[in-house]
Amino acid sequence: MELIMKDGERIDDLQLKGLRIIQDKSKFCFGTDAILLSSFARVNSGDMVADLGTGTGIIPILLCGKTNARYIRGIEIQHDMVDMARRSVALNELEDRVDISEGDIKIAHAYLEAGSFDVVVSNPPYKKVGSGIVNPNDKKAIARHEILCTLKDVISAASRLLRFGGRFSMVHRPDRLIDIVCGMREYNIEPKRIQMVHKNQSKPPSLVLIEGILGGKPSIDCLPPLFIYDEEGNYTPQLCKIYGIDMKSKVNYNGQQ
Amino acid sequence: MELIMKDGERIDDLQLKGLRIIQDKSKFCFGTDAILLSSFARVNSGDMVADLGTGTGIIPILLCGKTNARYIRGIEIQHDMVDMARRSVALNELEDRVDISEGDIKIAHAYLEAGSFDVVVSNPPYKKVGSGIVNPNDKKAIARHEILCTLKDVISAASRLLRFGGRFSMVHRPDRLIDIVCGMREYNIEPKRIQMVHKNQSKPPSLVLIEGILGGKPSIDCLPPLFIYDEEGNYTPQLCKIYGIDMKSKVNYNGQQ
Repeated sequence: MELIMKDGERIDDLQLKGLRIIQDKSKFCFGTDAILLSSFARVNSGDMVADLGTGTGIIPILLCGKTNARYIRGIEIQHDMVDMARRSVALNELEDRVDISEGDIKIAHAYLEAGSFDVVVSNPPYKKVGSGIVNPNDKKAIARHEILCTLKDVISAASRLLRFGGRFSMVHRPDRLIDIVCGMREYNIEPKRIQMVHKNQSKPPSLVLIEGILGGKPSIDCLPPLFIYDEEGNYTPQLCKIYGIDMKSKVNYNGQQ
Repeated sequence: MELIMKDGERIDDLQLKGLRIIQDKSKFCFGTDAILLSSFARVNSGDMVADLGTGTGIIPILLCGKTNARYIRGIEIQHDMVDMARRSVALNELEDRVDISEGDIKIAHAYLEAGSFDVVVSNPPYKKVGSGIVNPNDKKAIARHEILCTLKDVISAASRLLRFGGRFSMVHRPDRLIDIVCGMREYNIEPKRIQMVHKNQSKPPSLVLIEGILGGKPSIDCLPPLFIYDEEGNYTPQLCKIYGIDMKSKVNYNGQQ
């Protein structure tokens, strides 16, 4: 296979079964949140998975390394991100397990079969579009701000795509927690499992990981908190386990969202 | 004042400005949750406060010691608990700051002025009435199970009693988190501040402290987690501060709910 690389792109090693990803620093690069989500989501052997707003394709590629999902469909609205993600899929020879679809998740039910996915995952834009100036052509802004899709759009799409009893996992900002859980319940996805992610023990959470079940019964399992760093500023054993790294080698995943 | 004590009752020292409380081991005794709630709730000088389901009157009495609330009204449905709480108020000579009303919180708006409270607090029954056998005459069961009032009844009452912009603070079980926050939003109380309480760092939360504001705007402040014990099994500095105890003296507050 001939690998086409474009100006500004580079290949990063994911430190997981030889998997690699193409990224461009001028566009959106994946962060800790994508890695945490791909570990948090419960994907069983043979599952059909959809990733809403897949960006570089990082989550489908990580899920190929971490799970025995049968098929993972990443959906992305930005044409050049779709192109880059497809080249990463090809780079890893994952064409038989991953497909990157170009499309708007708000009408995903028009081109994907409703009720057909066991698992839906999403690392959506975190920030509401407020009064501040946001350039709608800025690739990073589209990944970070709710310009092309809102939280409700993501939850609504997940609800339509999941089979009954299917699982929706998301990573988001803790300040949106109430919008997330009330939105999920509104679309019949009952929040069933939640974990707060903190920089360290004394800090408020910086991320929330949440899983809901379509048609699930009320009652949520709150997990122990996940700390990134210990008191000495080293990665915690929890985080090293997720990253699959030896605690002594400090692989640095840059590119926080 | 002549103090009347009934069979089975004892007086416990609250280790706070000489405050004491009458309790009966055969009935419901206060636990860590009441102490945490009375520290978590934000009560300003001059505030009018209501405590829904006050039980022994522990929260009004603690709030007298910890805050400059002008007046605290405890509401309790069980006649003998009302009697006991009133005697504790008298024991502490707090009749000018605390009133214990006998009544059903479901119709609190019939005997308390709607929209007149700056703060409402509640340590309500935690458990849903399920298929298990619960004796409806059991005082402990009434304090623990939603026999005489549900979570929605508590939230609805808080919503009616609060002034616009007033604060509702509650302690509850984490597995009810979604019912709590969606219920609050349903009654126009926007969840604004949340803290998970864990036995220690590696345990899931055992309690959740949450504050909402009547008519507040969406966006929640997630606080750092609160740990009861450190890795050696001693109270953490966080907890000692709340308990107002010297870290070397291990005052043991028994009576977990």
